[in-house]
Amino acid sequence: MTGTVTAWRVLAGCVGVAYPRLMVSNEAERTTLVLALVQMECSEDPDDNLARALEGVEQAARDGARLVCLPELFRSRYFCQREDPAHFALAEPIPGPTTEALSKRAAELGVVIVASIFERRAEGLYHNTAVTFDADGSVAGRYRKMHIPDDPLYYEKFYFAPGDLGFSAPETRCGRIGTLVCWDQWFPEAARLTALSGAELLLYPTAIGWQFDEGSEVDAAQHSAWETIQRGHAIANGIFVAAVNRVGVEGEIRFWGQSFVADPFGRVIARAPADRETTLLVECDLGLIGRTRRDWPFLRDRRIDAYADLAKRFRD
Amino acid sequence: MTGTVTAWRVLAGCVGVAYPRLMVSNEAERTTLVLALVQMECSEDPDDNLARALEGVEQAARDGARLVCLPELFRSRYFCQREDPAHFALAEPIPGPTTEALSKRAAELGVVIVASIFERRAEGLYHNTAVTFDADGSVAGRYRKMHIPDDPLYYEKFYFAPGDLGFSAPETRCGRIGTLVCWDQWFPEAARLTALSGAELLLYPTAIGWQFDEGSEVDAAQHSAWETIQRGHAIANGIFVAAVNRVGVEGEIRFWGQSFVADPFGRVIARAPADRETTLLVECDLGLIGRTRRDWPFLRDRRIDAYADLAKRFRD
Repeated sequence: MTGTVTAWRVLAGCVGVAYPRLMVSNEAERTTLVLALVQMECSEDPDDNLARALEGVEQAARDGARLVCLPELFRSRYFCQREDPAHFALAEPIPGPTTEALSKRAAELGVVIVASIFERRAEGLYHNTAVTFDADGSVAGRYRKMHIPDDPLYYEKFYFAPGDLGFSAPETRCGRIGTLVCWDQWFPEAARLTALSGAELLLYPTAIGWQFDEGSEVDAAQHSAWETIQRGHAIANGIFVAAVNRVGVEGEIRFWGQSFVADPFGRVIARAPADRETTLLVECDLGLIGRTRRDWPFLRDRRIDAYADLAKRFRD
Repeated sequence: MTGTVTAWRVLAGCVGVAYPRLMVSNEAERTTLVLALVQMECSEDPDDNLARALEGVEQAARDGARLVCLPELFRSRYFCQREDPAHFALAEPIPGPTTEALSKRAAELGVVIVASIFERRAEGLYHNTAVTFDADGSVAGRYRKMHIPDDPLYYEKFYFAPGDLGFSAPETRCGRIGTLVCWDQWFPEAARLTALSGAELLLYPTAIGWQFDEGSEVDAAQHSAWETIQRGHAIANGIFVAAVNRVGVEGEIRFWGQSFVADPFGRVIARAPADRETTLLVECDLGLIGRTRRDWPFLRDRRIDAYADLAKRFRD
């Protein structure tokens, strides 16, 4: 890993001058992106969380990362465990204090940042939103979580209106980065549409964990299903997929960490531990996307003439 | 396993009388289907292959199976390794000798059979087709492979016209059984549409293997990707998924066997070896489908208003 990180630092001086793509290109087919996933614990204090997130970004940039992703709703405890109107006070507009701080830091460090925000769009209208800041601090894209869960301890339908921006993969100086959020992980349609938008990497800010009463066998099966289905998205679409989770115990949930990156073949190339804060620094050889898709040309063979009923709830 | 198989045999006497569903129902929520996957080697002799397939079905039925699935194009060697018009002589109409033999055996044994046929639909028009025989020998459904590969050693586009029957899950006396074929495994759309058609179990007759020159690391990654993406389909849709592969070396391909069944949580509950013929007899607790989908209600939250572009080749 160090080889490429070193090569990277040689390029770092160009950042902000000619807006080159923030990657190393050693040969026609090889372009390496150094990605950082900041797996963190989230405390009761939003200011403390923001400060630690910014520190995480800064350290990752110092270590060579050019793209840094934070966990879902990192500014607070995972408040959706209960339906409490008081929690709407945690929301903020975009632009707002969090996006301003992140935009500033992205520009200072010359890195792309993906961050999850509890967005107040209007009085009484809120979203679970991921914002992508380009390396000059500008907003490259915004994604409003499309699939909203509502399960015991995950009462998100109370807080978030379903996203209305659809699926996209904004161009950044690290390439085209697709963002989806947590529950979206379970929907192959979301991954596919984002890949069809040109994404080279799919990032999932996440807040998922175990409940206390389900036993270790169920716990293991849940975690395995979560990682497996996302590896499946990487394989089906021939792209990199990364999930960034929080850690720690909050109320009834033990967040399971284990942030990971899968390559376009679905191989897990890095995985963080379950029980502690970790910044995962991962080299992604973006040349693998083209090579994998040439070997397994699934995009060529999709039967787009026969998929109309995917827009139905059920075929009955 | 024996408990349920025994219970099953008690019911066997009813078969053909009142056409009950071929399953055990111990309680409101539990219905067990005993599934058999006949992983076999395919010789140069089509008659020998048919005879051994029928023996496999018979033995599986004796062992308690109520649904038996054969591998893709089991009547011959995997002829698609080369483009040779002489191989069209292997095709046959439906109904034809193979379907007649299977239909007869299904009725005699009172089992549902899923079999893959090289279908001659008209002169110069061929399909890679899976036929589902109900336990009375009637044809419950026919599926023509929708996604056709064309890769070195898998020149299927030369032989097979793309399917035109779409995706379905015909009702049988074992429940609603969805069939897809091999290359379809890589397309989440196919699994989703079949699940939305009501499938409780998704069966993939398959012919997939390793090539000789790629090395053990690539071999392992390919097999892992293949199993992983199908586990992903099970998870995304909350259904059972099973793949039935052939074994043995044919020309440049070492077919990798490892037929398997994944439950609606994506857990592999049975897996055959890589290197020999095996009939995998697997109990599927169909009650798990409802329980899994209640816990993880993905079908509830699909954003059918936002999926129209799945019918595009690419979003550019």
